[in-house]
Amino acid sequence: MKEYGELRTLLGAIDDLHRAAQVLEWDQETYMPGGAVAARIRQVATLRKLAHEQFTDDRVGVLLDRLAGLDLNEWGADLVAVTRRDYDRARRIPPHLIRDLALASGQAREAWRMARSTNDFQRFAPYLERILALTIEKAEALGYAVCRYDALLDEYEPGMRTSVVQSLFASLRRDLVPIVQAIARCDRPDTTFLRQAFDSEVQWAFGMDVLRKLGYDLMRGRQDVSAHPFSTSFSIDDVRITTRLHERSLPSALFSTMHEAGHALYEQGIDAALENTPLAEGASLGLHESQSRLWENLVGRSRSFWEYWYPDLRERFRDQLGVVSLDAFYRAVNCVTPAAIRVEADEVTYNLHIMLRFDLEQAMVDQQVAVQDLPALWNAKMEEYLGVRPGSDTEGVLQDIHWALGAIGYFPTYALGNLMSAQIFACARAALPDLDHSMARGDYTDLLAWLRTGIYRFGRSRSAAALIGEQLSAAPWLAYVRRKYEALYPLQS
Amino acid sequence: MKEYGELRTLLGAIDDLHRAAQVLEWDQETYMPGGAVAARIRQVATLRKLAHEQFTDDRVGVLLDRLAGLDLNEWGADLVAVTRRDYDRARRIPPHLIRDLALASGQAREAWRMARSTNDFQRFAPYLERILALTIEKAEALGYAVCRYDALLDEYEPGMRTSVVQSLFASLRRDLVPIVQAIARCDRPDTTFLRQAFDSEVQWAFGMDVLRKLGYDLMRGRQDVSAHPFSTSFSIDDVRITTRLHERSLPSALFSTMHEAGHALYEQGIDAALENTPLAEGASLGLHESQSRLWENLVGRSRSFWEYWYPDLRERFRDQLGVVSLDAFYRAVNCVTPAAIRVEADEVTYNLHIMLRFDLEQAMVDQQVAVQDLPALWNAKMEEYLGVRPGSDTEGVLQDIHWALGAIGYFPTYALGNLMSAQIFACARAALPDLDHSMARGDYTDLLAWLRTGIYRFGRSRSAAALIGEQLSAAPWLAYVRRKYEALYPLQS
Repeated sequence: MKEYGELRTLLGAIDDLHRAAQVLEWDQETYMPGGAVAARIRQVATLRKLAHEQFTDDRVGVLLDRLAGLDLNEWGADLVAVTRRDYDRARRIPPHLIRDLALASGQAREAWRMARSTNDFQRFAPYLERILALTIEKAEALGYAVCRYDALLDEYEPGMRTSVVQSLFASLRRDLVPIVQAIARCDRPDTTFLRQAFDSEVQWAFGMDVLRKLGYDLMRGRQDVSAHPFSTSFSIDDVRITTRLHERSLPSALFSTMHEAGHALYEQGIDAALENTPLAEGASLGLHESQSRLWENLVGRSRSFWEYWYPDLRERFRDQLGVVSLDAFYRAVNCVTPAAIRVEADEVTYNLHIMLRFDLEQAMVDQQVAVQDLPALWNAKMEEYLGVRPGSDTEGVLQDIHWALGAIGYFPTYALGNLMSAQIFACARAALPDLDHSMARGDYTDLLAWLRTGIYRFGRSRSAAALIGEQLSAAPWLAYVRRKYEALYPLQS
Repeated sequence: MKEYGELRTLLGAIDDLHRAAQVLEWDQETYMPGGAVAARIRQVATLRKLAHEQFTDDRVGVLLDRLAGLDLNEWGADLVAVTRRDYDRARRIPPHLIRDLALASGQAREAWRMARSTNDFQRFAPYLERILALTIEKAEALGYAVCRYDALLDEYEPGMRTSVVQSLFASLRRDLVPIVQAIARCDRPDTTFLRQAFDSEVQWAFGMDVLRKLGYDLMRGRQDVSAHPFSTSFSIDDVRITTRLHERSLPSALFSTMHEAGHALYEQGIDAALENTPLAEGASLGLHESQSRLWENLVGRSRSFWEYWYPDLRERFRDQLGVVSLDAFYRAVNCVTPAAIRVEADEVTYNLHIMLRFDLEQAMVDQQVAVQDLPALWNAKMEEYLGVRPGSDTEGVLQDIHWALGAIGYFPTYALGNLMSAQIFACARAALPDLDHSMARGDYTDLLAWLRTGIYRFGRSRSAAALIGEQLSAAPWLAYVRRKYEALYPLQS
């Protein structure tokens, strides 16, 4: 099929441009010298702009029209369908809006940094107003069936609707708030031993050993250090992660490593046939996050996991952990503390942080709340959901970079990912009766194989909903949390 | 000037593509996991192809026509003139030839590696024949006034003629061969202490301290480790180098570092106004090499240099160097040994290796010698020029990758660089009477400032000839070698 070959070639070059931009961004966060920022921002912008121009070219539309409904091979039909969706979305956004959003977010990012460091929301407010106005314009250009927020959500979680998230979050909140309140009444486990000095190189070596055991392929990936951990993919055969090393926080590096490894295991598991196509990515941000959370929390914070690893870790840090029992360690890394900062939240309270942002974003996008009123609203919701009042706007409404980036509609995917992780893990557990024993032996082979076969290999060729295979529900996650934390805290008191 | 702005924008995007490709290539040599090679080669090819397509677009020619002879600012006129030259060259090469050469060199590279590791020239010969045929086609497409080799040489050393190189090399050889022969009759200084075990991390730290002192700006550059040292530039504010670390060879890392630092000091010194234009590079490969050689040899192998650094180095390696005097060390790092391998050659014999290649390349390009006859010719010339017979083709005709890459016409720039380095250094010495004393104090500020003012800042806006400011000559280099090595060896005997 000549047109199919032409489409593959066009999309391949566009993929190359995006992946090259990702290499440049990775370098910027890991090895780039400080003086090089301006040139690097320009170079990445050039690559992204070229990729966008080539993708929105009329010729792509002509090819998609000709290929629609034709009898292509399995991946071919998926490729055409997914590209059609991307193309239509990309063409609906007027070029000036892309430029304006890029410019506005460049300025908003700087203003946000300044506002955050000086605890002065007013310095950020006018930039956020501009971002919001452009985001509303984008939503209108994209179009939606029911509500404006749908258009934004759909960018990060294809096919998801605001109403579905609302009802998931409502049922979640109803059951979760009492659990959090019950835990808040309990004594906190001792966590002070986690704040001793832990040699960074020993932490690094332990993390690398964990990575290898998980099944992360270091011939097709690597780990580096950056201020904010992330994962990125330059091809199916080059999926990298970063972590941070804090001598005074043992959990920081390890759980960052496992979180990013979850993202990376997903991308390394994509079928090689999808290489250099738009299908060689995760199906949605929520599903991607489900895998980072699955490996970080369902695996990495489980008792089985530490049954295998804790003796090893204690051996490496005899001075610090010699007197700490497995149980005490397990309790400490699962300590629940309602607090102001999302990125430091435990797995129980984390979703409440997301619900708050989801509520505010909807109100912003529907123009039911003024940007000026966000700080007060934020604090009121924090008190309502978590029983905590931020000490400042820096610890409140200014804590996340997302809005400054123009990423409105993104936050819900974090909580959806949490829900999906428990749902998928419950299926894995049903399919692999020996799962806990395997984990207690440091063996994740069957789990990884099961995830690859059922989810990873498909890339974007299947929707998240199709890959999960059952209706998304908060119940498995709530069941997981209840079972795990009942053993740690007297929740019935 | 609207057209000028449009040209700058077009050339800026093309520069961004090339620099992005360089980031990808740098990553490939430093941090990329082994499994990622195939995707990386494809990505770099896409970026280079796009850049070539955009550069050879008719519109660039139209803009250059309109801007020719107009009253632009200083850099503007240079930009148009240099771009005109690049454009005409690029347009003269038919697209199929670029593709064929890329393909042929991809295959030749693999064949060369195989032939070299098995010492079997016949495995490489057919690929070299193909490369040669395509190179001749390229020379014919480019055109030339006197001889075919001119067209090739001009790519690496703009404006240089084969006849000029011939006469430079002839005068050089006449005086150099007797010097080498005289040295060969002398006792070799002791160099065995350089082959002790030197801790790699200590070597690294020493090299970094030298880099800082030389004036290499680590806010706009960095050093990493790779199998083959190189320098590369992602912008004027991001010029990186690599080195290699061999525990059993102290000079290897240090002189590699200084060599690449010379290239990098040049690129870091280009005027900021030239950023993101085709002028933000070195004027020619010969001039570029002159700076690597100047810093590696004229500075780094001078007695003044070691007067400052040797006490420091000896302090770091007390066990290995405690009993070695400054004089003994200086002799050892300047030991002259005629030998088969170019990249291991000392500064005295190095140029003879280049002359041999220059002779053979001319004969190949003029079709006066068959590829089949190259091994025997190589060995005969080695005996004639250096008094050495390679033990195998691996150590003879197969030692360099250049021909496999299609880089015929490149070798002479190494020797031209050596000659230029002495010529430029003689000018620097005349302008800076305190130069030796400064170097003996570890102070290179004046030298670097002088080079920046007179050479570096101009980038490609001036020709190498204009920047050197006097007729290129072998005399300063011969005078330098004579003066230096008479003090080390009894040459008059």
